[in-house]
Amino acid sequence: MNVINRRIMLQGLATLAATIPVRAVAKNPRIPARSINAARLQQALEGLSKFGRRAGGSFSDGVSRVAYSDADVASRAYAMELMRNAGLNPTIDAAGNLTGRRPGSDPSLKPIVMGSHIDSVPGGGNFDGDLGSMAAIEVIHTLKDQQIPTHHPIEVAIWSNEEGYTMGSAAAVGSVPAQFADPTSKAGIAAREGLQRIGGDPDRLESARRAPGSIRCYLELHIEQGGILDQAGIPIGVVDGIVCIDQYEVTIEGFANHAGTTPMPGRQDALIAAAKMVQTVNEIARAEPGRHVATVGKLEVTPNAANVIPGLVRHTVEIRDLSAEKVAKLGAAIAKRADQIAAQTKTKIVMKRYFHLEPALADPALQAKIESAAANLGLKTMHLPSGAGHDAQELAKIGPMAMIFVPSVNGVSHSPHELTRWGDCANGANVLLRTLLEIDRDSARDAT
Amino acid sequence: MNVINRRIMLQGLATLAATIPVRAVAKNPRIPARSINAARLQQALEGLSKFGRRAGGSFSDGVSRVAYSDADVASRAYAMELMRNAGLNPTIDAAGNLTGRRPGSDPSLKPIVMGSHIDSVPGGGNFDGDLGSMAAIEVIHTLKDQQIPTHHPIEVAIWSNEEGYTMGSAAAVGSVPAQFADPTSKAGIAAREGLQRIGGDPDRLESARRAPGSIRCYLELHIEQGGILDQAGIPIGVVDGIVCIDQYEVTIEGFANHAGTTPMPGRQDALIAAAKMVQTVNEIARAEPGRHVATVGKLEVTPNAANVIPGLVRHTVEIRDLSAEKVAKLGAAIAKRADQIAAQTKTKIVMKRYFHLEPALADPALQAKIESAAANLGLKTMHLPSGAGHDAQELAKIGPMAMIFVPSVNGVSHSPHELTRWGDCANGANVLLRTLLEIDRDSARDAT
Repeated sequence: MNVINRRIMLQGLATLAATIPVRAVAKNPRIPARSINAARLQQALEGLSKFGRRAGGSFSDGVSRVAYSDADVASRAYAMELMRNAGLNPTIDAAGNLTGRRPGSDPSLKPIVMGSHIDSVPGGGNFDGDLGSMAAIEVIHTLKDQQIPTHHPIEVAIWSNEEGYTMGSAAAVGSVPAQFADPTSKAGIAAREGLQRIGGDPDRLESARRAPGSIRCYLELHIEQGGILDQAGIPIGVVDGIVCIDQYEVTIEGFANHAGTTPMPGRQDALIAAAKMVQTVNEIARAEPGRHVATVGKLEVTPNAANVIPGLVRHTVEIRDLSAEKVAKLGAAIAKRADQIAAQTKTKIVMKRYFHLEPALADPALQAKIESAAANLGLKTMHLPSGAGHDAQELAKIGPMAMIFVPSVNGVSHSPHELTRWGDCANGANVLLRTLLEIDRDSARDAT
Repeated sequence: MNVINRRIMLQGLATLAATIPVRAVAKNPRIPARSINAARLQQALEGLSKFGRRAGGSFSDGVSRVAYSDADVASRAYAMELMRNAGLNPTIDAAGNLTGRRPGSDPSLKPIVMGSHIDSVPGGGNFDGDLGSMAAIEVIHTLKDQQIPTHHPIEVAIWSNEEGYTMGSAAAVGSVPAQFADPTSKAGIAAREGLQRIGGDPDRLESARRAPGSIRCYLELHIEQGGILDQAGIPIGVVDGIVCIDQYEVTIEGFANHAGTTPMPGRQDALIAAAKMVQTVNEIARAEPGRHVATVGKLEVTPNAANVIPGLVRHTVEIRDLSAEKVAKLGAAIAKRADQIAAQTKTKIVMKRYFHLEPALADPALQAKIESAAANLGLKTMHLPSGAGHDAQELAKIGPMAMIFVPSVNGVSHSPHELTRWGDCANGANVLLRTLLEIDRDSARDAT
């Protein structure tokens, strides 16, 4: 509440400054202390939270708004309405992305793009993607309200099906993922049919493609989805980049036998080998200094009966870090220990990488802009990697990219308990606004 | 092959002795070296293996002859035919048990009962239950062929649905298991309907009940289903008893979170706790001297996705030993370590016993009879517990019980690869025959 009150006060003071047209200011103009409308942003998020909420539920029950579902379709109509209120004329591209452009004063400049997504995981929360999307619209609405001109065109993009392999943003940069051919999305709807449901056109996907170098930059505000900012009590995170991800499948073959009649020493228990693997992954990750993570998230036992010694276990190993070299090095260390565990437990262990995502580094100059914007607003920052994937990783393929993080209470995400305080939402949107204005001012100045 | 040849030779020598009626012999009569017909026993097992074999398969493909299935129904008709050939008049009791009685010379004596089962697990082998059933019929057939009278009536029982909680034998001793009310058996057929399919009567189950003390004893020949005899190269196992079984469900609650964004130190990973539990169960069992076993056979992870830290794991712990005290002590030691693991991993661990089976001890006098019978046949013996459950554990509730084990190659069981060599099958059946004759002689003598 205090944070919001402070914003409203600052907004009042800013009114005078707003009368000076930005285009007219000198070489090193001071950007006035504009503020987004925090109450309107909250209202937009609360309104969005109704799409995919269980019948009779409340905001704190979160949403299941999986891409292509009825809830997704309805929420997109809602977002388009908000875009129109902000003065935009939203269009849907062949990949189902919703975009709206506010013209700039200099037609020769490339657009500054802001965005995120509004589809959710099943049983998700009200902030992942939603905050960045609603804040981008709110920033445009603020520019309209306060009649702030920009040199660059400013674009809002709400990317389709982010939770399904960043489908929409990948198509927008011409790297349509192989998964697009998958028979069904998380909503159980075929990708082609799903895309048609949201107004896309699977046969014209190429038309959604943006050329490398066609944007000034891409900015995305997002909740951290981890607990680093929350624990440190820091309101703004400056993202260094989106991590590299390696996923392995580990197959452990032992020998299934009667658990009552097979003496302990003669056993080839695949689950005992798997237990050692799970601990090894954890130990190797914890022994190495840094912000990498390594997880065994999925594990399946065959035949999986109380009275049968497990003959087969399959489990995943996922490793993430900004450095692809470190991810590979940790994977190799785990594979080496797997061979030792196989020998100890008389099992056969095969470890196979089935997924690899290159890291996407944030542009250092844009990171500096976020830092200075936050400093101007009196907000502390810290640098951190993004452990989760985002649409920004795709946009980084065609232009400079940066992300602003705000705290997730207790680091909870992909859960109905996901929570970012309204004050932190407003802080993030204000940093987004100010970063955008600083980029617009400086890159227009550099161009002149 | 050598063993079988030796039997055939002995059988020839025994023909003379067989002309002396057993009833007429003096106080300490020498039992002649009778032998069962090993070729006929093999033929009976090979014939039985056709019921539940996959189309186009061979003997080594094993069987799926789950209770109440069509294969079970057909195999029971086959067994009744063999019983008739052996001179018995088989009947089906209300619990679906097939029984046949050969009268003894002394109507005041209680029956000696031999038997086992012919239903199998899905994907089972050709020896578990089958050997004891076919051998019991073969012993009766041998008594008929060689015109050997007995004092006691001798009964063959093929118990129904052994693999489903020893259903038939439990009903026969009046302890119908709670599972009888279960909606479906392993064949996916309701227990009541299934029982009707095999000629039983669920409404008259009480009529199948035998009173405590109503049998002289119960003898069961069975494959070991473990590798102890096979590894030691000993042809005959004298079973000390059927083990006590405790089964626990362990529930581990951690906190599910994004595997990419949650730093290693803040995690409450239920699978890491489970991995420590799996290793603890193994370590505690191996540290304690003895023949007990402890197994984590079933383990399930929630939500079970590569990119989510496991929030919940449920797994079983099964402990078996002849001593119920030892089983309880091992369970308590594991539960104590569970508390420490919960504290270390910041998880909540609840360990709950959901199944308990009392041990069933074999009668020492009968064990001595098996030893002397084997010694008389020149076969080495060793004592061992039965780690698996058997119909004998039920029969022990109404009279003295003993079991004869023969080797399982590599200890494999409940698998198509289950194998007991024909020579070992014949050895077991011969020990069964001779044990029966020794009991008959001595208990008749004691009664006079």
